[in-house]
Amino acid sequence: MAATLRDVAQRAQVSVRTVSNVVSGYQHVSEQMRRRVHAAIEELDYRPNPVAQTLRTGRTGVLALVVPEIDVPYFAELAREVIDAAAAVGYRVMIDQTGHDHERERRLLTGADRTMLFDGVLFSPLVTRAEVLEMNLSSTMPLVLLGEHEFDGRYDHVAIDNVRAAQDATDHLIGLGRSRIAAIGAQPEENYATPQQRTAGYERALRAAGLEPRRDYLQPAAHYRRADGYHAARELLALPDRPDAIFCYSDLLAMGAMRAVFDAGLEVPDDVAIVGVDDIEEGRYSRPTLSTVSLDTPFIAQHAVARITTRITDPDTPAAELTAPHTVLARESTEHPAG
Amino acid sequence: MAATLRDVAQRAQVSVRTVSNVVSGYQHVSEQMRRRVHAAIEELDYRPNPVAQTLRTGRTGVLALVVPEIDVPYFAELAREVIDAAAAVGYRVMIDQTGHDHERERRLLTGADRTMLFDGVLFSPLVTRAEVLEMNLSSTMPLVLLGEHEFDGRYDHVAIDNVRAAQDATDHLIGLGRSRIAAIGAQPEENYATPQQRTAGYERALRAAGLEPRRDYLQPAAHYRRADGYHAARELLALPDRPDAIFCYSDLLAMGAMRAVFDAGLEVPDDVAIVGVDDIEEGRYSRPTLSTVSLDTPFIAQHAVARITTRITDPDTPAAELTAPHTVLARESTEHPAG
Repeated sequence: MAATLRDVAQRAQVSVRTVSNVVSGYQHVSEQMRRRVHAAIEELDYRPNPVAQTLRTGRTGVLALVVPEIDVPYFAELAREVIDAAAAVGYRVMIDQTGHDHERERRLLTGADRTMLFDGVLFSPLVTRAEVLEMNLSSTMPLVLLGEHEFDGRYDHVAIDNVRAAQDATDHLIGLGRSRIAAIGAQPEENYATPQQRTAGYERALRAAGLEPRRDYLQPAAHYRRADGYHAARELLALPDRPDAIFCYSDLLAMGAMRAVFDAGLEVPDDVAIVGVDDIEEGRYSRPTLSTVSLDTPFIAQHAVARITTRITDPDTPAAELTAPHTVLARESTEHPAG
Repeated sequence: MAATLRDVAQRAQVSVRTVSNVVSGYQHVSEQMRRRVHAAIEELDYRPNPVAQTLRTGRTGVLALVVPEIDVPYFAELAREVIDAAAAVGYRVMIDQTGHDHERERRLLTGADRTMLFDGVLFSPLVTRAEVLEMNLSSTMPLVLLGEHEFDGRYDHVAIDNVRAAQDATDHLIGLGRSRIAAIGAQPEENYATPQQRTAGYERALRAAGLEPRRDYLQPAAHYRRADGYHAARELLALPDRPDAIFCYSDLLAMGAMRAVFDAGLEVPDDVAIVGVDDIEEGRYSRPTLSTVSLDTPFIAQHAVARITTRITDPDTPAAELTAPHTVLARESTEHPAG
């Protein structure tokens, strides 16, 4: 049986209130009382009830990081950065995964789901633009949104310039002299912000180079995983005039696409150059290594944690829109290794 | 301002106790009262305080999954399986990462860290054998241990037969006719169970085939990540009689090792055959695809969740030791593709 506050009081021969005052760090307790209570706590191996402590302080010291899929490497790597950034300011982070459950995301974003005990939430949602506009996000739970969404400046939000990132990736392929440039990752029916912004940047770059976007070069992907990239690339490679370059909206899509190119008996980058987005570690070891748009994930993590701690202290602080830097990294999947 | 229990009581013209009874699902409330309270709750958009609810029920409906590093794909994939298995029995899972912080692990395992609010903990620790023996694990927090450790049957524990898995992987390389078989992943100084068991299985397989284990073929790895595998493989490839096969104690080590082989101008599997452990998704798309020991992760997740829910309901249930199946999957990194 775990010792209770009452057991400690009995052993120390003081009142329960005195034990409670000592445990919660209340100042006006005599040194003698304090020592007596501490001795009893050690003898009985008493551990304060965390629920009761939370009620007293109103703070848990815990942030939630909510991501769609924890086994997508980008989210796992983001999680690691957020954990480090939060630890530096004394917070722990627990990770929650929504899957592709929109209702669950909606409940979390609107504050309808209050089963968890946190001081604040860092949220990377998959919601659609229409859903965001409909939402009336909770004002009671401090919230910072991550990722490429359009939130009309109503909420703290940290993300890259998504249109520009897609444009830069496509420009990189154009700069290699490729002209039949396809894209994998569109989701035209669902009206998500991320794919729409990336398609916009891709098409803008093509038009600026005098290339007309082709409908058959724009391949949808239900999710941004390896299997989706593999199947989309197979569709592209089966076209009569197959592309000589592919811009993939995530590195994981690009990993699947590279494998599809090899399985078709073709080479990357000779036959098809490939560039992704995210700069996950896998792409630094793959064969060939993967060219990608590197997001400044430490920047995203540090600024997200700074915003949430500010918002926890001052709930009325105005919402901030922060743009993280990005860079195109040219690796073997678009350029031959030196030598 | 968020509505309180008191606001609801006032609006419904009932006592605070009646509102509390309705909110907590207490049976003995008249249907009329219930309807009146629910109407007031909707009008005021009242949301019950989760801390107060936890105090009432003594349950949070939340399990913690504690892993060393969330951006190691095996742990991320395990997390996804655990989340699915827990959801099937009505539990949510929050993921916590200990990093390589042994003191943090010790505090969690001994119950000294009680800042979190969970009904139970699924724990995949990195602790050493000596540390486990020293431990007096908390009896107040339901706990199930995951992964290849030796816990003397004192705790619920789900894992593969680690010695046997390593032996099977090495046998696979021997079966290819390779005779200079190295291993990457030993950690001789730290006395961890996982590497020791894998080294034992590796050496057992070699001896059974009449091959003497060589000290210079046993490469340590500080962590089980791509960079560790890369550097360890470079050491092996620099030997005068370099190995013709490598057993890596994790797939991530194997990914780094494969890249080191290519960077040395050699081919996998022609010059060096490589096999890993874990069967992460990355190895099904890499070039070449990675031969591996596949752990039955859904088995591990489902049995771990079943044990923890049993233990939450009945804390005195005897500890169970469950062994998950494993299989060697031969892919391109050890065998040439057909055709």
